[in-house]
Amino acid sequence: MTLPTLPDIQSAHKRIKPFIHHTPVLTSRQLNKMFGCELFFKCENFQKVGAFKFRGATNAVLSLTDEEKKRGVVTHSSGNHAAALALAAGMNGVKAQIVMPEAAPEVKKKAVAGYGAEITFCKPTLQAREETTRMIMEKTGATLVHPYNNFNVICGQGTAALELLGENADLEIVVAPIGGGGLMSGTSTTVRGLNKNITVIGAEPLNANDAWKSFTTGVLTPSVNPVTVADGLLTSLSELTFTIIRKNVDEIFTAKEDSIIECMLLVWERMKIIIEPSSATVLAIIKENPGYFRGKKTGLILSGGNVDFRKLPF
Amino acid sequence: MTLPTLPDIQSAHKRIKPFIHHTPVLTSRQLNKMFGCELFFKCENFQKVGAFKFRGATNAVLSLTDEEKKRGVVTHSSGNHAAALALAAGMNGVKAQIVMPEAAPEVKKKAVAGYGAEITFCKPTLQAREETTRMIMEKTGATLVHPYNNFNVICGQGTAALELLGENADLEIVVAPIGGGGLMSGTSTTVRGLNKNITVIGAEPLNANDAWKSFTTGVLTPSVNPVTVADGLLTSLSELTFTIIRKNVDEIFTAKEDSIIECMLLVWERMKIIIEPSSATVLAIIKENPGYFRGKKTGLILSGGNVDFRKLPF
Repeated sequence: MTLPTLPDIQSAHKRIKPFIHHTPVLTSRQLNKMFGCELFFKCENFQKVGAFKFRGATNAVLSLTDEEKKRGVVTHSSGNHAAALALAAGMNGVKAQIVMPEAAPEVKKKAVAGYGAEITFCKPTLQAREETTRMIMEKTGATLVHPYNNFNVICGQGTAALELLGENADLEIVVAPIGGGGLMSGTSTTVRGLNKNITVIGAEPLNANDAWKSFTTGVLTPSVNPVTVADGLLTSLSELTFTIIRKNVDEIFTAKEDSIIECMLLVWERMKIIIEPSSATVLAIIKENPGYFRGKKTGLILSGGNVDFRKLPF
Repeated sequence: MTLPTLPDIQSAHKRIKPFIHHTPVLTSRQLNKMFGCELFFKCENFQKVGAFKFRGATNAVLSLTDEEKKRGVVTHSSGNHAAALALAAGMNGVKAQIVMPEAAPEVKKKAVAGYGAEITFCKPTLQAREETTRMIMEKTGATLVHPYNNFNVICGQGTAALELLGENADLEIVVAPIGGGGLMSGTSTTVRGLNKNITVIGAEPLNANDAWKSFTTGVLTPSVNPVTVADGLLTSLSELTFTIIRKNVDEIFTAKEDSIIECMLLVWERMKIIIEPSSATVLAIIKENPGYFRGKKTGLILSGGNVDFRKLPF
């Protein structure tokens, strides 16, 4: 198992730079006062397709050989990764095939199709998704771009922290959310590589706390049918992301559902920016552990801003 | 009647600069493509208290004599101006008294009280508001800071356009929303003063189109009980703002309710920033008049981002 290093992430950043948005880092005096620390929000909600996922998908597509590019890419996802891979592939003249459950929201199907990807529908089980994906790979020779269990994807995700620390070298803590662990793997590799004194913290919903369990017990322990408002963090760690996170991360904190919702609303109200519930998890763990963060310069990665405005949790 | 000039607005900007946020100008390639023009959004939703109103209120407070500062300020408003004046006064050690209808939303009462202002409740009629305000003025000698029929307030509001054009000197059109006309008066004075070749456009809800009527007929014609989702634009022009707008503005376009709601949602979805319906009016008139704006570099003033998330229009 080859683990990404800081130079891998720096190379990825050079590769994807012409395609991604260099997202802003925002601050809020009101929130600093409220939480008793200095917060620096890296706004991946302003990234293309509205999520950090575009970084990893772009790096994966640009890392293909010419031969692989001709055969295209495939993934199974109904979330931000599907849209990200569809757009990244489309921008680079590579064909993308996306396996989605039939019941996926219309708006997501439209977004993916709008970026020019081909959608194959399947039953809403992990088995059906994996089988359909394997079939497409066998038939077309397409390269699988897994949402997080993928070296190049992880390197791409790590570029958000590279930009964050490039502008704010004096951060004392960096927090990223954990779902499948791709963002946290990339983030922690970047932070560890740049500065060993910065504390690296993972944020996870209490209701989908497989990473916390795995991290605490040392045994990879996937969640079973987790239910959380942070719908981008339902997935569980893979072997690769678990290995990286065990190596680099200092602590994983979990957040209750009501803290996540409260912090999402706080960011909307006070900062006037739209973040999805998964993003709010990073602020929610600070709310639940104020002593740990008091007075610290803390960088937070806001993972995305894709929200169904007709189904708000508040 | 003394009309503000560009030097008045430039002086106001120097005066208020240490207190206000220099808000960013955002762009969106997606929206440019969709609307067929180059849009530059001046984000006053990121201003303190979430609206441009803080500029005018701060300029009014800082323009008081020492004697006047001791006696305090008063206004009647249940909206963004009330919060803006409360904060501007509080930051400068000046007492603010705000006259509000009893039925004003709890959240607005709390915000105003939180900034240290004293609230006097009254019946929900214009007459009751004006009488209560007059009583306070007589009793305390407080200076009335009208939300828009006020020279210093207008000069403060004009500073948003000053920043916008300072960073984007090559704009061909500037659009601002019209309610009572304070923002439009300040904006149009700035734009006319800086560059006579820039077209100045007012945006108004069709359902509260008093400015359009007054502008078209040449006779000041207030709206009677208008109903629109753009609740910051319910008020009608005053003598002062009508005079300035007639002198400086090239056209006033009106927008239908469904265009305003559609454009509000578009900005939320595509730009991931929160704007209130009044702000969306500037984009809605472009949607309804695409030929007029085609290919033009257009600056849009987004007036604010204070939204009740439990009562969204979509």
